[in-house]
Amino acid sequence: MMEKLRKALNPESVAIVGTSVDQVSVGIGPVYNLVSSFYRGKIFPVNPKYENVMGIKCYPDLRSIGEPLDLVIILLNQHAAMDILEEAGKLGANGAVIVAGGFKEVDEDGKALEERLQKISAKYEIPVIGPNTHGFSNFHKDFHSIFWHFDTFPGEIAVISQSGGVGLTIACSLRTMMCGLSHFVGVGNGAVTGFSDYLQVINLDPNVRVFSLFVEGLENAREFYECARKITAKKPVVVYKAGKNEEVAKATLTHTGSLTGEYDLYRAMFKQAGLVEVDSAWDAAVASKALAMLNLPEGDRVCAMTFTAGPSIVGMDRLLDAGWKFPDISDHARQGIRSVIGEKTPVELQNPIDLTGLGFLPQNYSGVLEVLRDESFDAFFLVWSFNALIRIPIAEIEKFVKDVKKPVVMVLLANQYEAERYLEELARRRVCCYLTPEDGATALNALLRRYKMLNRDRKVSN
Amino acid sequence: MMEKLRKALNPESVAIVGTSVDQVSVGIGPVYNLVSSFYRGKIFPVNPKYENVMGIKCYPDLRSIGEPLDLVIILLNQHAAMDILEEAGKLGANGAVIVAGGFKEVDEDGKALEERLQKISAKYEIPVIGPNTHGFSNFHKDFHSIFWHFDTFPGEIAVISQSGGVGLTIACSLRTMMCGLSHFVGVGNGAVTGFSDYLQVINLDPNVRVFSLFVEGLENAREFYECARKITAKKPVVVYKAGKNEEVAKATLTHTGSLTGEYDLYRAMFKQAGLVEVDSAWDAAVASKALAMLNLPEGDRVCAMTFTAGPSIVGMDRLLDAGWKFPDISDHARQGIRSVIGEKTPVELQNPIDLTGLGFLPQNYSGVLEVLRDESFDAFFLVWSFNALIRIPIAEIEKFVKDVKKPVVMVLLANQYEAERYLEELARRRVCCYLTPEDGATALNALLRRYKMLNRDRKVSN
Repeated sequence: MMEKLRKALNPESVAIVGTSVDQVSVGIGPVYNLVSSFYRGKIFPVNPKYENVMGIKCYPDLRSIGEPLDLVIILLNQHAAMDILEEAGKLGANGAVIVAGGFKEVDEDGKALEERLQKISAKYEIPVIGPNTHGFSNFHKDFHSIFWHFDTFPGEIAVISQSGGVGLTIACSLRTMMCGLSHFVGVGNGAVTGFSDYLQVINLDPNVRVFSLFVEGLENAREFYECARKITAKKPVVVYKAGKNEEVAKATLTHTGSLTGEYDLYRAMFKQAGLVEVDSAWDAAVASKALAMLNLPEGDRVCAMTFTAGPSIVGMDRLLDAGWKFPDISDHARQGIRSVIGEKTPVELQNPIDLTGLGFLPQNYSGVLEVLRDESFDAFFLVWSFNALIRIPIAEIEKFVKDVKKPVVMVLLANQYEAERYLEELARRRVCCYLTPEDGATALNALLRRYKMLNRDRKVSN
Repeated sequence: MMEKLRKALNPESVAIVGTSVDQVSVGIGPVYNLVSSFYRGKIFPVNPKYENVMGIKCYPDLRSIGEPLDLVIILLNQHAAMDILEEAGKLGANGAVIVAGGFKEVDEDGKALEERLQKISAKYEIPVIGPNTHGFSNFHKDFHSIFWHFDTFPGEIAVISQSGGVGLTIACSLRTMMCGLSHFVGVGNGAVTGFSDYLQVINLDPNVRVFSLFVEGLENAREFYECARKITAKKPVVVYKAGKNEEVAKATLTHTGSLTGEYDLYRAMFKQAGLVEVDSAWDAAVASKALAMLNLPEGDRVCAMTFTAGPSIVGMDRLLDAGWKFPDISDHARQGIRSVIGEKTPVELQNPIDLTGLGFLPQNYSGVLEVLRDESFDAFFLVWSFNALIRIPIAEIEKFVKDVKKPVVMVLLANQYEAERYLEELARRRVCCYLTPEDGATALNALLRRYKMLNRDRKVSN
């Protein structure tokens, strides 16, 4: 079934059953998304009511297509979806997406229906994505089974989410941070294929550098653990878990039919499996971006540099908590920095390094970076305060990042709108940048946790 | 001294000593900021080297100006600044800003210099802002003593920060959320005027609805407590505190010369004084925005509505933690919602209300809002997933907000760039909107904490 799922997630041909030119129930149909993103595979709309949809020939049913199908997207209600799934199975389709809700998350009848779904899937060995899902996107294939349209671009992060809305929040946060996605998968009820299946299959895709998961509850935590542990040995996996409160469990049950369960047990399991756990959708994006863009540190010694000390102080609060050390700078570095910013600058040079207003000059900033290049730090936390009238030393920071080959997080104190074009340029130059010191710290902390996890496993295996 | 400080923070005339056409040490001079923001008071650049600066007559010294001065901005080094302060005091200026560092935050000599500063200030009864500060802005007066330029607009939130960089982060975060500022004050070393003074004086300004503070450490916590307690009886005060780690204390000491001290004591004191404490600069902006834009609830019963349940589930996690209750909707409401979304929609209607895909239609969304209008909730948490192809029911939500007269937080799942024009429109219509469910929850939680605090005080005084 895994090979079929792989083909379904990389479809060369797709049928969309229940497509409509007046798609009320699911907003706007996948056909629109496929056409507007220039999907290169074959598109077969299916609806007996139409001759064509958006200029593409429309078929009355699956059978009349007469070609192999990698994926069948089923937009019909939960009852009608069963018949189409059966038909797709008979025709040997490699996979199906069932969007409709109305299964185990609503009542006993729905539960029975979900069991029927599982039986059909098993009988024909057809993997099912969903039900009760927005479907998935594979951005490197320009493929979208999802029925709503959102703005992003191909990238290195695979978002796999038990909730379309929270997955969307992670995806939007990444877009705000100028990070693209490789995949965006809605697990939904996960009646047939769950997190472990998606992790395994998507892990084969060379475009993927990081996984970013949103989990409500896991049916099979042991299977997830075994699978995640194998993945995290090679690739970072970020996880955000819902349902810390008991009352939330009730709401979750009627959402994707999952029990959120004992949060503490999940937390321990995530840690053991080497996942990087975060506390919000935004932080999932922050950590995923850092893990996708940066090298891992080879130790825990961080150097912070700023010309307005406050941001490095609030960053320090978080970095120290996570286990980073702030060793002092060497006398050699101290002399080097003095020679750049002047002997008389009234500031005590220590780590965090506060250059004061003199650091605001691009030539001074890059001069000090040159001094720090060979100092024995494992990571850098560089703050720049945006000023509409002073050039940001982007090329100099890019050079530093390339030279040191260590993780460097840049914090640009600016609002999102004035930062936009710089964030684009920095992303292109592979400089990892955030707009608040707290986000910068969250980013470095994710790297340190992954470094420690890999180190722990290395020790265990030695 | 308070009346002088009030005049200094609302200056009709300002001298800038040490202004330069080649302002290296402090980036770009305040003269540029004052001219480009169309400040309506009198500007007197002072520097014997120039005849004029940016077309404005330049004076060789303070005395030769020969007019009353509300404020003297001193851009010179820490030693030269002392002489100018003395001169400003003699001339009867209402206040001075000293930008230079090199005082108690560096060494014993600096400490002695700061004591001299305090003596001069006391002798002439001239309030000093700083030293070691970026100065301040009063946006409703188009006034900026700060030497760097950043993008915002006049609003209702006064940011008072012991760090220019963290204050800037709060200000930029607010700008990203489409909130303006009334004031932006850098306390710096606070040698003469501290948080209590700024709170008292700025509190007199009718433009201010909310204070947002960043605190490293307080010299006089008792005075701060007494002052803050009086303010919070009338206006919300948000506070973000640095220095949870001991090692951070060292860095802070060489920053603004403050000891960050025992964090737990601060936390208890903030709570007792009725402040709303937050954990990051971003959260300071989130809470300040909500407190500036929204009515307080009159109870703790919240209703969440969504058409993709995940966001309300992660919101719930935080809302429940803060003490919000999620009472179920009435049978009457249940029937009303069914009549809008259809009897057959396979979803269990409870609170949070999940409308599923059918809620995605603006007419359905507003139809359900109409049903909820008279239900007995104290606050609302409304989620909308952005879709480029479906209209956001902004006018309908605005109407709901006006009708219910209760706090309504909207969560728009979108990235910052696609959201920008909607955030602008929503702010104009006074709809309080965030882009992640976690931020929406932080916002409602700030309101509940303030409601509870006022309630506690009411009970005590009865």
